[in-house]
Amino acid sequence: MFERVFSSDNTAGVSPGIVAALAEQAGGRAVPYGADDVTERVTGRLRDVFECELDVLIVSTGSAANGLALAALTPPWGAVLCHGDSHINNDEAGAPEFFSNGAKLVSLPGDDGKLHPDTLAAAVNRGRGEVQSVQPSVVSVTQATETGSVYSLAELGELTGIARGAGLATHMDGARFTNALVSIGATPADMTWRSGVDILSFGATKNGTMNAEAVVVFDRSKTIELRYRQKRAGQLASKMRFQAAQLDAYLTDDLWLQNAAHANGMAARLAHGLASIPGTSVIGTPRANLLFVTLAESTISSLLVDGFSFYRDRWDPTRVRFVTAFTTTEADVDDLLAAIEAASPPPLD
Amino acid sequence: MFERVFSSDNTAGVSPGIVAALAEQAGGRAVPYGADDVTERVTGRLRDVFECELDVLIVSTGSAANGLALAALTPPWGAVLCHGDSHINNDEAGAPEFFSNGAKLVSLPGDDGKLHPDTLAAAVNRGRGEVQSVQPSVVSVTQATETGSVYSLAELGELTGIARGAGLATHMDGARFTNALVSIGATPADMTWRSGVDILSFGATKNGTMNAEAVVVFDRSKTIELRYRQKRAGQLASKMRFQAAQLDAYLTDDLWLQNAAHANGMAARLAHGLASIPGTSVIGTPRANLLFVTLAESTISSLLVDGFSFYRDRWDPTRVRFVTAFTTTEADVDDLLAAIEAASPPPLD
Amino acid sequence: MFERVFSSDNTAGVSPGIVAALAEQAGGRAVPYGADDVTERVTGRLRDVFECELDVLIVSTGSAANGLALAALTPPWGAVLCHGDSHINNDEAGAPEFFSNGAKLVSLPGDDGKLHPDTLAAAVNRGRGEVQSVQPSVVSVTQATETGSVYSLAELGELTGIARGAGLATHMDGARFTNALVSIGATPADMTWRSGVDILSFGATKNGTMNAEAVVVFDRSKTIELRYRQKRAGQLASKMRFQAAQLDAYLTDDLWLQNAAHANGMAARLAHGLASIPGTSVIGTPRANLLFVTLAESTISSLLVDGFSFYRDRWDPTRVRFVTAFTTTEADVDDLLAAIEAASPPPLD
Amino acid sequence: MFERVFSSDNTAGVSPGIVAALAEQAGGRAVPYGADDVTERVTGRLRDVFECELDVLIVSTGSAANGLALAALTPPWGAVLCHGDSHINNDEAGAPEFFSNGAKLVSLPGDDGKLHPDTLAAAVNRGRGEVQSVQPSVVSVTQATETGSVYSLAELGELTGIARGAGLATHMDGARFTNALVSIGATPADMTWRSGVDILSFGATKNGTMNAEAVVVFDRSKTIELRYRQKRAGQLASKMRFQAAQLDAYLTDDLWLQNAAHANGMAARLAHGLASIPGTSVIGTPRANLLFVTLAESTISSLLVDGFSFYRDRWDPTRVRFVTAFTTTEADVDDLLAAIEAASPPPLD
Repeated sequence: MFERVFSSDNTAGVSPGIVAALAEQAGGRAVPYGADDVTERVTGRLRDVFECELDVLIVSTGSAANGLALAALTPPWGAVLCHGDSHINNDEAGAPEFFSNGAKLVSLPGDDGKLHPDTLAAAVNRGRGEVQSVQPSVVSVTQATETGSVYSLAELGELTGIARGAGLATHMDGARFTNALVSIGATPADMTWRSGVDILSFGATKNGTMNAEAVVVFDRSKTIELRYRQKRAGQLASKMRFQAAQLDAYLTDDLWLQNAAHANGMAARLAHGLASIPGTSVIGTPRANLLFVTLAESTISSLLVDGFSFYRDRWDPTRVRFVTAFTTTEADVDDLLAAIEAASPPPLD
Repeated sequence: MFERVFSSDNTAGVSPGIVAALAEQAGGRAVPYGADDVTERVTGRLRDVFECELDVLIVSTGSAANGLALAALTPPWGAVLCHGDSHINNDEAGAPEFFSNGAKLVSLPGDDGKLHPDTLAAAVNRGRGEVQSVQPSVVSVTQATETGSVYSLAELGELTGIARGAGLATHMDGARFTNALVSIGATPADMTWRSGVDILSFGATKNGTMNAEAVVVFDRSKTIELRYRQKRAGQLASKMRFQAAQLDAYLTDDLWLQNAAHANGMAARLAHGLASIPGTSVIGTPRANLLFVTLAESTISSLLVDGFSFYRDRWDPTRVRFVTAFTTTEADVDDLLAAIEAASPPPLD
Repeated sequence: MFERVFSSDNTAGVSPGIVAALAEQAGGRAVPYGADDVTERVTGRLRDVFECELDVLIVSTGSAANGLALAALTPPWGAVLCHGDSHINNDEAGAPEFFSNGAKLVSLPGDDGKLHPDTLAAAVNRGRGEVQSVQPSVVSVTQATETGSVYSLAELGELTGIARGAGLATHMDGARFTNALVSIGATPADMTWRSGVDILSFGATKNGTMNAEAVVVFDRSKTIELRYRQKRAGQLASKMRFQAAQLDAYLTDDLWLQNAAHANGMAARLAHGLASIPGTSVIGTPRANLLFVTLAESTISSLLVDGFSFYRDRWDPTRVRFVTAFTTTEADVDDLLAAIEAASPPPLD
Repeated sequence: MFERVFSSDNTAGVSPGIVAALAEQAGGRAVPYGADDVTERVTGRLRDVFECELDVLIVSTGSAANGLALAALTPPWGAVLCHGDSHINNDEAGAPEFFSNGAKLVSLPGDDGKLHPDTLAAAVNRGRGEVQSVQPSVVSVTQATETGSVYSLAELGELTGIARGAGLATHMDGARFTNALVSIGATPADMTWRSGVDILSFGATKNGTMNAEAVVVFDRSKTIELRYRQKRAGQLASKMRFQAAQLDAYLTDDLWLQNAAHANGMAARLAHGLASIPGTSVIGTPRANLLFVTLAESTISSLLVDGFSFYRDRWDPTRVRFVTAFTTTEADVDDLLAAIEAASPPPLD
């Protein structure tokens, strides 16, 4: 039986190696609150991965990671510049405002889910030094974006350069960090601190872990503050080793990279298949594991009848979103393609 | 080899049944954000356990549970009345203040770690209706307390009656809920809503789970608000079923009750053994799984040399805290007792 | 000598009657914190003016009035729907976010400085009931708007109807309330609660007082909460009678209406004069005491040389803003007109 | 007719010179938001008074001054160490918690309304560096205290030395600053920055102004942040010159010093008179303009019948508080003394 769930990668389960790592930690005793060996090992792994000194806070959700990161980079009277479609702006119930004690998210437009340098350049100095105005303090970029596109290193560097030039910090929401990483073939260092990122929300849950994400702090002047914020926000797990063990396994033997490469591959397979079905088209330039696709309304209805799940009804009625995960199989994709093809109206001739 | 860790029950691992439940959930797909079957099942189990309609929010830490519960029960200009030694007052880095947007914790004294009815009665009306004063809004009781004592049902009822009589809600911090429950032999319903508790922080992590706690909402008028607060606080896990599965297993076949009874029994064994060692004395009336004990300073030094870990140095230099867990064995306790006996100075004659 | 200040109405002084009222209160004793006779009298006057039961909080600034009003109408996870050009969105350094503990201002576009019913209708239900989304909670309309336009009663009623239909409250930012009122010739009741306004920020400082504004609460279920918020925000003046006395005099013998009518008249005189100067044009449909005007850049430079002050450089380089006040004289306006005419380039022929 | 109001100094009116200063400013135009000449002049006067470079924020209430000052000196996860009887702890409805986004006020005991060095020394390092604990960040001293006592320079220096030694800042709540100043005969510089004070809430309203207080910033690294906080809190008055003019007149020709010396003198006259009335006693060592006094309950009842107003019912039923103001006359005091004497029970013999 095929899996017909394409609604989100967060519907997937957990990689077997990660479950095994948890089982291994289940016995024995350990120092609580992240002072244990596994948490230390994860920090070491991330230092190796990112080729630099850095600090790590392990948290339970992406919203917490983003909220903590942003709170450390903006005062309450600051502005967070972000894309209008970004998760922090739309999908976290105001978590950034809560964690930051009321900073303002300023949403900017941009094609293909990306911030545009010109728009950003116009925003970074708005109201600077005027007490009547919130103060632009941090740019948040999402990599991969909400539309499945990815920033190139050049694009990232240009944006963070504009930010830095105006005295702003840069946050990267990496809920799908690894999907972007394998997509552009960059090193983790190049796609983050070498591109000017100060704090990264390192997503892992969508890509194989259970409930473990990391705030990766390149600007280590923020670490002490972040540790208090983490505890105060109820994000300092007492048995932290069980979140650390997930990340430890995730970063072992390239599991994280393989999972993301697989999910991306399934999205590419889906895009490739769609290209030969008349009346369908992929929107934008997706390069990760999610696609926005235009389908006939009758096709959409038919897919729903067939038991496929996916997002729709938030946009134009002919637009749907398909997301692949590390557990999606070629057969799952082909099953979806077959259903779309079968349901698509014959081309006009 | 004995475990010589008596510093906290949060150093323990995880019950095997809970690991198995996670493994079982690892494959397959599920709806995210708590709309899955396992989360629904946990809610059902808790309704059975507490014999009433109630709502449940599963969160990752006790600080988050307490913060969310208190925020739902007090406005920002409210006062939370709590014991001076309570965890919310001392050990959460201001999480209640953060979650509640600045409510004030008013700490009250009380012997044996417990709030006293007279002290509470004097506090519940302080400043009522005066705009210059924060408004008493909620009483928070800790069951079992930070000193290992437990409130009887009569004591709880008297406190919540005082609260209710003055229009205040009652929160119970149940980080060691089950330890108290089995200690007094009450039903969950009697120890909570029948005793006047509006929202319970249902602790599980110290007693066998990995990173799953529950906010159990008896006053269901608070549920909608709590769901927004949960998301906004980064506590709505996308793969919620992996926290739910922990609680599901925890509540199956009396695992939670057995774990707590075992931990309590180990503390009782320790207390019993100490009674026959001259120069030692147990402080207060511990009834759960932690003991405060007076030892000679030389004995304390000796235990440290022997590799025992426990809390000290926060109080009188002759005072230490021993905590047992569901994983503590009789041999572990006897090993500690033997070490104390060996190290204790001979009685004066 | 003419006054050449057209930058803002908040550069004006204070009406003589208001100074006299303060002098009259200077001796004697009075109960503090607004329990005095003068404060009570102001509330009575406002009840008469608005023809209904209502409550009043006197505060020192418009930002405080707006912040308190909005905080009472939205939870922290709520959204405040407002025009993108609104003062609360741009010019209060995040005061609404501060007072509301992190609510989100959602800025909407709209011609002529006004919210459009269609745009509002699309926004009031966005994300309703989804925990991932901030919840639309209040619409804030500015009357008169930041561009000098005013809503008609029909327009107000349509907007508040959309709000109410979706369960949202309505706040009116009336920093220039009286300018709008005399402009459309409505009664205060018709322009507020009869049009669906729940809380009004009743501006007075720009129109003649020194530092007194009022939060006029039509939805009296919010009053108790507002009194705590007022004190907590440092807005409950101990010698409240000195702010009350300003409003008392302001509302006596139609001073407030006369001041606003005068200021509006001066803006109309300016607009009328500009109509006959080639190369200038008034933007939008100003009906209150401020005009946005297109001038040749050379004309703008010339006016600056002549010592006129006004806002520019925030928009298109040919756009300036002129604001008249209750103290602006016909001679002041004619002086400005003469200067513009003298500086304007001859029309092409 | 005598004034029989001894409830608070905030029931007094306004010094005539201050009203005159307001009248003088009523005409003409000025730049808004504190960029005017009068505001600049006040800053200059305060620099002269305090003999140092400093920055000034003029605000409308003492709660706002305290809230802003404390918010600049503590992070949200910080602790403000203060006396249990302090105004910030009891009488501001949680304003410090609001302004600071949830910092914790830790109340310390101390005789005579004063913090004791030993108690403070034990508190400044509590929990330092532990993420579970709020971090001691600022000590707030009240000068004069809530009980009418005053700190000597030696006492102040000792307290601020303890604070500074542990890395904490010092805030002075000077709601009755001038009463303390003239009481101990110190210079303003000696009683503030030379004694280690970083930010002062410079009270003026109780001592002669209408609604003008100043945050005097000695630690100028906090000024930029404070300006944003001031605006964001609705405390940046548009017509700031009308608050500045009050302070300008207040600081002219020693008006502030004379007013405070007069009020203190009236309290001393009252204390002196009470000393010869059997059955009455002054509590503590008042040195400013307020006295706590023990009276027979029958005497208290009699005074109330005679129309005197004063605080009682908050403490022991035989305890009352009398406050004198700059407007209290010798005749007012003698009238009160006569009434007490007449009402006092004859001494037992």
